[in-house]
Amino acid sequence: MAVAGYYTPTHVLFGKGAEEEVGRELKKEGATKVLVHYGSERIRKTGLLDKVISLIKAEEIEVFTLGGVVPNPRVSLVRKGVEMVKEHGIDFILAIGGGSVIDSSKAIAYGGVYDGDVWDFYSQKAVPKASMKTGCILTMAAAGSEMSDSSVITNDEGGLKRGCNTDYCRLRFALCNPEFTYSLPAYQTGAAIVDIMMHTMERYFVKGETLSFTDNMATALLRTVVQWGPVALKEPENYEARANIMWASSISHNGFTAFGNCARGDWACHQMEHELSGMFDVAHGAGLSAIWASWGRYVYKEEPSRFVSFGRDVFGLAPTGDDDADALRAIAATEEFFRSLGMPVRISDFGISLTEEQLEELSVKATFFGKRTLGQFMKLSHDEIKDIYRAAK
Amino acid sequence: MAVAGYYTPTHVLFGKGAEEEVGRELKKEGATKVLVHYGSERIRKTGLLDKVISLIKAEEIEVFTLGGVVPNPRVSLVRKGVEMVKEHGIDFILAIGGGSVIDSSKAIAYGGVYDGDVWDFYSQKAVPKASMKTGCILTMAAAGSEMSDSSVITNDEGGLKRGCNTDYCRLRFALCNPEFTYSLPAYQTGAAIVDIMMHTMERYFVKGETLSFTDNMATALLRTVVQWGPVALKEPENYEARANIMWASSISHNGFTAFGNCARGDWACHQMEHELSGMFDVAHGAGLSAIWASWGRYVYKEEPSRFVSFGRDVFGLAPTGDDDADALRAIAATEEFFRSLGMPVRISDFGISLTEEQLEELSVKATFFGKRTLGQFMKLSHDEIKDIYRAAK
Repeated sequence: MAVAGYYTPTHVLFGKGAEEEVGRELKKEGATKVLVHYGSERIRKTGLLDKVISLIKAEEIEVFTLGGVVPNPRVSLVRKGVEMVKEHGIDFILAIGGGSVIDSSKAIAYGGVYDGDVWDFYSQKAVPKASMKTGCILTMAAAGSEMSDSSVITNDEGGLKRGCNTDYCRLRFALCNPEFTYSLPAYQTGAAIVDIMMHTMERYFVKGETLSFTDNMATALLRTVVQWGPVALKEPENYEARANIMWASSISHNGFTAFGNCARGDWACHQMEHELSGMFDVAHGAGLSAIWASWGRYVYKEEPSRFVSFGRDVFGLAPTGDDDADALRAIAATEEFFRSLGMPVRISDFGISLTEEQLEELSVKATFFGKRTLGQFMKLSHDEIKDIYRAAK
Repeated sequence: MAVAGYYTPTHVLFGKGAEEEVGRELKKEGATKVLVHYGSERIRKTGLLDKVISLIKAEEIEVFTLGGVVPNPRVSLVRKGVEMVKEHGIDFILAIGGGSVIDSSKAIAYGGVYDGDVWDFYSQKAVPKASMKTGCILTMAAAGSEMSDSSVITNDEGGLKRGCNTDYCRLRFALCNPEFTYSLPAYQTGAAIVDIMMHTMERYFVKGETLSFTDNMATALLRTVVQWGPVALKEPENYEARANIMWASSISHNGFTAFGNCARGDWACHQMEHELSGMFDVAHGAGLSAIWASWGRYVYKEEPSRFVSFGRDVFGLAPTGDDDADALRAIAATEEFFRSLGMPVRISDFGISLTEEQLEELSVKATFFGKRTLGQFMKLSHDEIKDIYRAAK
């Protein structure tokens, strides 16, 4: 097995009132001019934005603001942020929000120290060599961007959604108060739970050697989310549920659940979903939920026993000895769980009827115009990807 | 619950050949003069020291060496290291070894940027405000010092063993090759397994709220070690066993298994063991093994259900409904597991017959001459500690 890397330098402060530390954390990082980046006006209306600004100013740090990040964040707004950074000499990007805002902040931080167009990093024309410092106040638990090396941005022209992964964009700090997720609507909570689970499931379903330690951690994380997810849906202000889900979201995507495995994950479903939400702007977690079981049924024969272990350790399904049947039961249990969260398990559940042309366009985009396969558990060509999109229709 | 902190900035490279990265990692850290600190002559004899020195020199970094670290590392050698740092303008401490060498390196790194005597930090006369940069090549898996904020040093005069915990001493990098632990003798492997488990058990046994996520992670970690520990004892060159144990050692002590809990842990057994090994120079893990079950039987009534969960989730003991009996079964199962590793479960198993005077001396030292209680699960006074030492006799 190759040398495994693990690098999670983000200083996490977690719990009620964690956001109060924002001024002190920025001061410690030596910030002098901060861009506060956020999405919905909810951040302003609830008073959080004003509170944060005054905490920062109390440390004699200058504040600029840029709101308006949308789900599937756009490169156009990122470019605006980069301009602000260069115009004002901003030296720190503070995200207030969830994955979209953090990903957008990471992109601004790449662009702020780059002479070309920031989209170069997402279209793989260039590789980042540095980044500005970033931090966040987390108000949603799903994407895990607060500890991850990943940033996903959508290009307004053509709806291409692309990721860029480097250690440079790991946040300096993440202030995580689970109370901020109380107001998350049920649909978004459901999508979040799927997203969190999928970050670990993408890493769990690899073909080849895995570290037993990591398998045990991955399934313990998934069990925890399966336990607390429905509680959060039923009781949105249950602190314990929200706290367990929030911390799971961070750990699920920081690399821990792939440590020492033969590969960093499969990621076919994520890439297929990126095209889907690029085209239809559906919630990322909901898109994953609509695709996963079709992917599972298409690929499980590559190594049914992996699905059997998954079913046993996550859903408590005792193996019967018939691996194929047990694998299918595990997939069905997962699908059933996603459905119980109010999530789509087919693309048609969104009210979308995919045409043949759209199936082709999705598959073409997902394979970079046929230039790459997707997946590691099973390597999928353009035609196989199209089969899965069709099965998920 | 208070705001929880999590900070594990150490860049981990893990697997066969991880040590090859040492020169590049030091270069990245900007090191120009490195003190290579190690313990036994085995490091030299196996050729590892020469290999590391030439990898460092290849990056045009100057190398100084200081060997001779012993288990329960001495402040006298630390002081020598601090002198070398100040004399030669050394800017990085590289440990090659396990917990003792890393702890000694951390102490040198504290002392290297301090005007007073480094023991001040361990005797609580002063609090560190900074540290030099440190890294390690890990050759033993037990103490978890490679990712922890902790350093424990013994004062040659009086046998006082004291810890100092701050985030300043978190290593910059840890190069972890499980193959280096193949040659660890059975006794040390057994002691290591207990030490690893105890770092999580000390955190698990707290009285009050815990995060369900963290409970699940803690018990998954313990189950993994319970599975692979005996394999490593039987087949010392089983890579899978050694790898699982090595990674467990790092995660068990980096703070992860206490995240979001009401307290950072109990730590009474650790503090009692520190006095024991300070007085008799026994292996730390073996000392913990000799004490733990006596501690468990003394304190379990504070909250038997915690021991019941522990027995269920770590050893698969189905609860019967009689919490007291189940708690005692869990303690007995743990004791039996330690014994199966060839570890002492009483102090007399070391061949030590504690006298009344020694019992008193241990209890006096453990309580800082009666100035503190030990433990969180149950707060223990001098007399109670003496009872536990006596029960463990």
